[in-house]
Amino acid sequence: MFSSAVKQWEGGVSMVQGASRGICLEFVRQLLEKSDKGHVVATCRNPNGAPGLQELKNKFAERLDIHQLDLTIDSTIEEAAKSVKDNTETTLNKVQRDSLLLTYEVYAVGPILVVKHMWPLLKVGGVTGTDRDFAIVANMSARVGSIGDNGLGGWHSYRASKTALNQLTKTVSVEFARKKDPIVCILLHPGTVDTDLSRPFQGNVPEGKLFTKEFSVQKLLSIIMNAKRSDNGKFFAWDGQEIP
Amino acid sequence: MFSSAVKQWEGGVSMVQGASRGICLEFVRQLLEKSDKGHVVATCRNPNGAPGLQELKNKFAERLDIHQLDLTIDSTIEEAAKSVKDNTETTLNKVQRDSLLLTYEVYAVGPILVVKHMWPLLKVGGVTGTDRDFAIVANMSARVGSIGDNGLGGWHSYRASKTALNQLTKTVSVEFARKKDPIVCILLHPGTVDTDLSRPFQGNVPEGKLFTKEFSVQKLLSIIMNAKRSDNGKFFAWDGQEIP
Repeated sequence: MFSSAVKQWEGGVSMVQGASRGICLEFVRQLLEKSDKGHVVATCRNPNGAPGLQELKNKFAERLDIHQLDLTIDSTIEEAAKSVKDNTETTLNKVQRDSLLLTYEVYAVGPILVVKHMWPLLKVGGVTGTDRDFAIVANMSARVGSIGDNGLGGWHSYRASKTALNQLTKTVSVEFARKKDPIVCILLHPGTVDTDLSRPFQGNVPEGKLFTKEFSVQKLLSIIMNAKRSDNGKFFAWDGQEIP
Repeated sequence: MFSSAVKQWEGGVSMVQGASRGICLEFVRQLLEKSDKGHVVATCRNPNGAPGLQELKNKFAERLDIHQLDLTIDSTIEEAAKSVKDNTETTLNKVQRDSLLLTYEVYAVGPILVVKHMWPLLKVGGVTGTDRDFAIVANMSARVGSIGDNGLGGWHSYRASKTALNQLTKTVSVEFARKKDPIVCILLHPGTVDTDLSRPFQGNVPEGKLFTKEFSVQKLLSIIMNAKRSDNGKFFAWDGQEIP
């Protein structure tokens, strides 16, 4: 997700990828409901199959633009994604080439290519429409992507892809800083949030550590909105703590 | 590369992947020349196009087995790899989906799938034929894969893939430890070595920091041969220093 101002729109423009459901749909909702200005560009693979997004469009027609965006080449992505989901890697024996590549394409390649193509807009638009004098690229990572924090194993494809996304975001942040572009890149860990993705594993979550989408996104938005230039390249958890 | 003993062969069995040239060919050479026992299984995509390997086969016919092994599905890999090499990513603008995916397939997916398929052999064979009571999986990583160490940016696909390999190796090492398998996984950084891969970038290497293949492999073999069980999951540079 990144936030910028492409035109002279008061309140700026936020773009949210993969906004059909879960945490990202909640980002769209809070961006629209918690302020009476600012535009949101929401993208997902199949807008017609995203009732939550359509509902927001009915309520905030002027401020919400929905665009179809498929980050993968493979047209059978839905099917493949389902097979990955049904085959959670609890052991190396379950790791498959297709899951590794598909997960990498969705969680690492896609987000970084979007940053690449949005770079010209981020550069020129970062300083208009908001109080900030820079644009923010906030990539959703996860603590499981941290190598130092990997005490449990499992989830090979997902872990490796999030770790790679961390590295790609860091690499991009170094280049933006070197070129003095008004863009700050950060990584976010939302905590364990009550979504379809986490449902099968919620049994292992300690009491009080399974968050609602509302709570997690509220925390993350506050980190994004309060980001400083010196935060470029950093990785933050939902509570603002930095993750190595 | 990993080292194990599948049969009761004195000196054990070492397997070296991608052994047609560069550092890995040098591993094969030293494993054969520095000891008068022990078998080496060397794999590469095209054994007929690997003169260095054939030369060693003539000299050590009994102790060297060469096998054809292509870790990718795509038969146009050679061509694709060349285009990746010719298009070094010095900036985000040069980053392409194909380079990202192909590099990931070669440097992260391939090595981890080989470990997956060799797992049964590593488990049963780890304790035979050598003085060690465990098998070693040593994956060649690189310091550019360390996120904390990324001060320069660039090389997006390569960095991200090596970072992902680090995470996958760590994930696997956690599982081996949990299952009490006699297998130790380590990651190695060879330093900047004078090979085809590094040639275009050698201008930036400080004096005394560009190593010969012989020197680097000698150092790395010594780390592998002296690895302890407590090294499982760790990342070592050529000089034995641990990399975070």
